[in-house]
Amino acid sequence: MPRVTDEHRAARREQILDAALRRVAAEGFHRTTMADVIAESDLSAGAVYGYFRSKQELIRAIADRVGGVLASTIEGLAEADPPVPPAAALEAVLERVLDLAADAGYDVPSVAVQAWAEAARDPEVRAVLATKMRRVRDSWTAYAERARDAGLLAPDADPAAVGGTLLGLMPGFLVFRLVLGDVTPQSHTAGLAELMRSP
Amino acid sequence: MPRVTDEHRAARREQILDAALRRVAAEGFHRTTMADVIAESDLSAGAVYGYFRSKQELIRAIADRVGGVLASTIEGLAEADPPVPPAAALEAVLERVLDLAADAGYDVPSVAVQAWAEAARDPEVRAVLATKMRRVRDSWTAYAERARDAGLLAPDADPAAVGGTLLGLMPGFLVFRLVLGDVTPQSHTAGLAELMRSP
Repeated sequence: MPRVTDEHRAARREQILDAALRRVAAEGFHRTTMADVIAESDLSAGAVYGYFRSKQELIRAIADRVGGVLASTIEGLAEADPPVPPAAALEAVLERVLDLAADAGYDVPSVAVQAWAEAARDPEVRAVLATKMRRVRDSWTAYAERARDAGLLAPDADPAAVGGTLLGLMPGFLVFRLVLGDVTPQSHTAGLAELMRSP
Repeated sequence: MPRVTDEHRAARREQILDAALRRVAAEGFHRTTMADVIAESDLSAGAVYGYFRSKQELIRAIADRVGGVLASTIEGLAEADPPVPPAAALEAVLERVLDLAADAGYDVPSVAVQAWAEAARDPEVRAVLATKMRRVRDSWTAYAERARDAGLLAPDADPAAVGGTLLGLMPGFLVFRLVLGDVTPQSHTAGLAELMRSP
């Protein structure tokens, strides 16, 4: 029954990724070893290495997962008819970021800043993150195009520039959650709505 | 001549801080030791410890320096008469971030992400960064109040919300410089100007 086996494999893979994310949130990528991930996952070393041969593969899988969830959330917003306004769209995506964290039991802001710190030192990690960020940026650009066509932006607004700003507010949300603690999806997007009603 | 001595001490202190920033940009806070800083500074261990007794003190001084430069740049923008529009103000501050990096020979985006990663693990570092971020946010709020009074924002716009959004775009600029590489102060603020001319 290959279908059952595939489902089983996928569930195991997620179990290992969740374990890795909890360790990275607590210790950073650099200090997290494969041995830590194996201990945290409650699986055998052989089982874990059967899914991920190295920390690099784990980092790639983490970036795939987080980037994929964000991009598909934004793509969903772009397809809504009529589209929600930009500040509300960003608020919905930031809520999704918090849901992700609550579901999996790890701190998304911590994982994000550890990933960026690792990218500063490791060109391979940088390349993985760049690919995911570009995909999320493209999703925002597609949303901005739809929002412009629906009359939510100026008729000649540049969707790529607007997409860059919407992506551009996401790292700040994560950093402020981590360092200041006093930011919510609503508070982080309120100023954008204020700026958009400028004379 | 105490004045000369003070100047000499201040210059030495800056020399040590520059050395520390170069090491942190390359290796992160956690892997940078006082011995690394001493070697990089070309001063004796006794001289370095005369200024900074621990890595914690160095981190505090780095946050003081970077936070202070950003806050005073924004305060200067708030005092300009008439104030520049929000997107141009943010662009000017991001240019200042790049100037800082060029002057001192270290990579500001790398130092920033390493500092956030350290804050994820060390509550004392988190508290230092929070104090500085709040000061920069307050500067943006003061700017937004002036911009509103000058008619650049809606008459009833909330300056604190607008200040939060302007601060909120700064971490994204640093992360994109580091990971994507294809962002400039102009490109990072173009979308904000587009969003502000929405119908």
